[in-house]
Amino acid sequence: MPEVEIFIQDMAAIMLVAGVVTVLFNRFKQPVVLGYIVAGIILGPYTPPFKLIKDEHTIHILSELGVIFLLFSLGLEFSLKKLSKVGATGMLVAAAEISLMFWVGYEIGTFFGWKTMDAIFLGAMLAVSSTTIIVKALSELGMKQEKFAQLIFGILIIEDILAIGMIALLSGIATSGSVSMGEVGSTIGRLLLFMIVALVLGILIVPRLLAYVGKFKNKEVFLVTVLGLCFGFCLLVMKLNYSVALGAFIIGAVMAESRHLHQIERLIEPIRDMFSAVFFVTIGLLVNPHVLAEYWLPILVITVAVVLGKVISCGLATFLSGHSGRTSMRVGMGLAQIGEFSFIIAALGVSLKVTSDFLYPTVVAVSVITTLLTPYLIRLADPLSRKMADVMPNKLSSVFNLYTNWLEHLQPHGDRAAISKIIRRILLQVIVNLALVAAIFIAGGYFAESLGHSMAGWIADRQMQTAIVWGGALLLSLPCLIAVYRKLQALSMIVAEMAVQPERAGAYTEKVRKVIAEVIPAVSIIGIMFLIVVLSSRILPPMNLLIFVLIAVAAVAFLLWQKFVRLHSRLQIALFETLDEQPDEKH
Amino acid sequence: MPEVEIFIQDMAAIMLVAGVVTVLFNRFKQPVVLGYIVAGIILGPYTPPFKLIKDEHTIHILSELGVIFLLFSLGLEFSLKKLSKVGATGMLVAAAEISLMFWVGYEIGTFFGWKTMDAIFLGAMLAVSSTTIIVKALSELGMKQEKFAQLIFGILIIEDILAIGMIALLSGIATSGSVSMGEVGSTIGRLLLFMIVALVLGILIVPRLLAYVGKFKNKEVFLVTVLGLCFGFCLLVMKLNYSVALGAFIIGAVMAESRHLHQIERLIEPIRDMFSAVFFVTIGLLVNPHVLAEYWLPILVITVAVVLGKVISCGLATFLSGHSGRTSMRVGMGLAQIGEFSFIIAALGVSLKVTSDFLYPTVVAVSVITTLLTPYLIRLADPLSRKMADVMPNKLSSVFNLYTNWLEHLQPHGDRAAISKIIRRILLQVIVNLALVAAIFIAGGYFAESLGHSMAGWIADRQMQTAIVWGGALLLSLPCLIAVYRKLQALSMIVAEMAVQPERAGAYTEKVRKVIAEVIPAVSIIGIMFLIVVLSSRILPPMNLLIFVLIAVAAVAFLLWQKFVRLHSRLQIALFETLDEQPDEKH
Repeated sequence: MPEVEIFIQDMAAIMLVAGVVTVLFNRFKQPVVLGYIVAGIILGPYTPPFKLIKDEHTIHILSELGVIFLLFSLGLEFSLKKLSKVGATGMLVAAAEISLMFWVGYEIGTFFGWKTMDAIFLGAMLAVSSTTIIVKALSELGMKQEKFAQLIFGILIIEDILAIGMIALLSGIATSGSVSMGEVGSTIGRLLLFMIVALVLGILIVPRLLAYVGKFKNKEVFLVTVLGLCFGFCLLVMKLNYSVALGAFIIGAVMAESRHLHQIERLIEPIRDMFSAVFFVTIGLLVNPHVLAEYWLPILVITVAVVLGKVISCGLATFLSGHSGRTSMRVGMGLAQIGEFSFIIAALGVSLKVTSDFLYPTVVAVSVITTLLTPYLIRLADPLSRKMADVMPNKLSSVFNLYTNWLEHLQPHGDRAAISKIIRRILLQVIVNLALVAAIFIAGGYFAESLGHSMAGWIADRQMQTAIVWGGALLLSLPCLIAVYRKLQALSMIVAEMAVQPERAGAYTEKVRKVIAEVIPAVSIIGIMFLIVVLSSRILPPMNLLIFVLIAVAAVAFLLWQKFVRLHSRLQIALFETLDEQPDEKH
Repeated sequence: MPEVEIFIQDMAAIMLVAGVVTVLFNRFKQPVVLGYIVAGIILGPYTPPFKLIKDEHTIHILSELGVIFLLFSLGLEFSLKKLSKVGATGMLVAAAEISLMFWVGYEIGTFFGWKTMDAIFLGAMLAVSSTTIIVKALSELGMKQEKFAQLIFGILIIEDILAIGMIALLSGIATSGSVSMGEVGSTIGRLLLFMIVALVLGILIVPRLLAYVGKFKNKEVFLVTVLGLCFGFCLLVMKLNYSVALGAFIIGAVMAESRHLHQIERLIEPIRDMFSAVFFVTIGLLVNPHVLAEYWLPILVITVAVVLGKVISCGLATFLSGHSGRTSMRVGMGLAQIGEFSFIIAALGVSLKVTSDFLYPTVVAVSVITTLLTPYLIRLADPLSRKMADVMPNKLSSVFNLYTNWLEHLQPHGDRAAISKIIRRILLQVIVNLALVAAIFIAGGYFAESLGHSMAGWIADRQMQTAIVWGGALLLSLPCLIAVYRKLQALSMIVAEMAVQPERAGAYTEKVRKVIAEVIPAVSIIGIMFLIVVLSSRILPPMNLLIFVLIAVAAVAFLLWQKFVRLHSRLQIALFETLDEQPDEKH
């Protein structure tokens, strides 16, 4: 039989079985995702009648498209604005959940005597809750608009980002085989740097490009452009040794800032649904029911650990960040399951060949059970929190009340709140600009060799070449550096104003303030220069050339100061415009 | 590099290059399809910088999805109602165009001394015009709603059906290597039979199934159901040794009768656009520019032949079926190109390994040139028809007028028109019912062996087994046979009424009419029984059993006559209801 026919036959088998099973699951109000997994188990080699998929190779390649489009869609739903709203609570809950669950998962793996890598991957798989399942459960319970649901969605966004970081880390650990804290730190640092730079440049370029293509009013050209950007960025990310999932998520988040967001969502949705079906079915393909019978004890233990661990960590963290007991219980119960990210991490382990065969079906089983439990847990939240309030000793509940009041008191109010908001904003801008500078110098170091080669024709001296590359990088980062300097000046004036009060400094007030306002930027600039030297150590020219380059760049900076300021502020305005723009109405 | 990464890289290359090229093509108001082909040529191995696609195998499998979704969409736009409106004109024009162009193509191939199979495939590739290109050109010229455009769309539907038949024929010819008229006839006969049965059963089942699934209001489940039906039917068609293209078209035509048509179209559109992009790019991949330079003469000759041949055959046939000179010229000019079907046929030749390497790029080149010409030709139609009217000798134009009047006179009017409509309707119903009967007996013959095996447990005698299978088939077809008998009775009464006029038959009028009304159905039933015997010759039981089965079935028919009549009319009503139902509004 020719290969194309085998492929059609496989697709027909997948879609027919998935269609029948999901219709049945939908009829009995169970999540579609579970239907796909069951369809996969039926199609797989371990269940009668027989192996119904002939060309697993091609199907697995297609399932990779499922991962890409799933994460691309997740990125489309991501928004920097939503993220800033949930802010502290989201960070705290996500961090608490992920660190506790990672530790619990690792300990369970070690307890059962599994390989270290299995234990690490188990920890990672338990760490993150499932957006798909939660959205589905909440919308079926009609609770999607409630406050705790909005909180859950915010937490999920942060979890997604951390999960993507975890995927990057796991790939590194799995290939190098070791876990050093320094390496973890530098991986996370480089990842954050990459994400900031990609988001800033992406939001500057992509929405404008899409607006241009959107003007043609040709759906087909628009779709191909979106797909070109998506796959192109995934390729770039892959070449930088990050996972395709990360790329798809970031480019999705960038496109989320486009005016054409709803159009993109409408076009991508059917493609995502088609390939995510293939992806979830291939998960089922790998599930061996015999393994489940053999590993019933770990499955049970992990399930209990997931439910208890997530309810406790998420619930407690929500409460500690100042929400009511009822909301906290609802958030904890809502997040008590694992889902698609666990599958992606499991698939990563299989494709890197570092995890054992039993881990995949075990985790799928836990996901299936916790998914089925989710709607019941959410419904259980209110009665349970009432019950807990009833049985709680009065003393304990007054301690809780005290805590809530103290937290309320901690929040800045009035003028202080306004100032702290300004300071946060300035610090954020400084960080973003520094990230851009760092990216320019890292890229300079990366491309120094090939840039040198292309210059070899007219500049033979290697040292001259590196001096030119280094000077070029410095010149490119000048607008950002100048912006950083100006922001820090503003910041130090605010700090001076706040720190030096006339009541205490008396007649010296103005002078001390001035000193502070001058010293902070100067010291910071020296620190930044030191950072640059460290980052660009590979391409740093020798001292005599360095001084020459520095003088030249300083001269340029002096002459074109106003031009650079204007250029930077124009780019910044463009960025904020794109961020503030509302997507077109759905139509 | 792992295979998944190669795949992502290939997809990125395709979508990036296709994106850039199509944006440019759209900017300069050229068809997107041309952009894809150019992107393919850039990506292909024959042009600098180098071969950008690494895993051609997977990409070719994906391009098959492009063919499936292209034809599925075409099927969705097909409608039996539209078909019946264009009727005779469409048939005449399509038949004239296809037969002339097939002959011209074959002759050109022979003239250049190419292999017989190359000449045959060239003929097939020139036969059919391109729906995509025409729709695009007409909508850009703002002429989509005009009368001649509606006529063109009708012609294209009939052409598509004939083209799909041609694909089935070509596969047969290419694998058997010979062309016998008997085989062509039997292939077309079986194909028509299959299409009628698939459409009738499909329209009875599929829209109801989709209505059921549509009630869940779950887009994902609905999409998976649609894809399951699409791929499942393609698989069935493939198992019957027809092309996947045929399957996708028929199941699309069946779904076109669903109330959810617009929803299906919206869901399938992005998937089709994604994979048709891959399909058209893979066409470009195979184009070697050196071959184009070498074969410039055939390309030129074929291009001229396509334009002149199609303008003349379509224009003349339109005129002969009673349209004005202006409309005829516009129709002819509109249809003067080749497109996606030519590519599908070319790909068929390549995959069956029966055509030479140069044929593919040659036809692509002709398609590119004729596509570029299409809008200019349409704009040229009106001036040209005015010019022709001016220079035409008076005598000739009066002959044309006479012809138009004569044709007008030929059309039945008043009572005769109503009666001829009724007769046509009855004949159509008889044909459809006979097709169902034929399908039941053919399927009986096909499955006789396996049915016999499964009966072997309790009936050992082979002859008894075939007798049961044959009797079962007869029983199953009883409702259709009874319906045919009743329709033929009605028909013969009308015929008797019309043929025997009292002025001529006098006192015998009633008697003669009665004889005619009795004889026609009786004779027809004998003819039908003879047909059944021929069709089921493989499973016909021996005489003694045959007589026994016939008596038993006759008894059943006698006892359950009214039940069968009601069952059949209920099915018929269900069918017409589905056909008459309007799809839901777009929303």
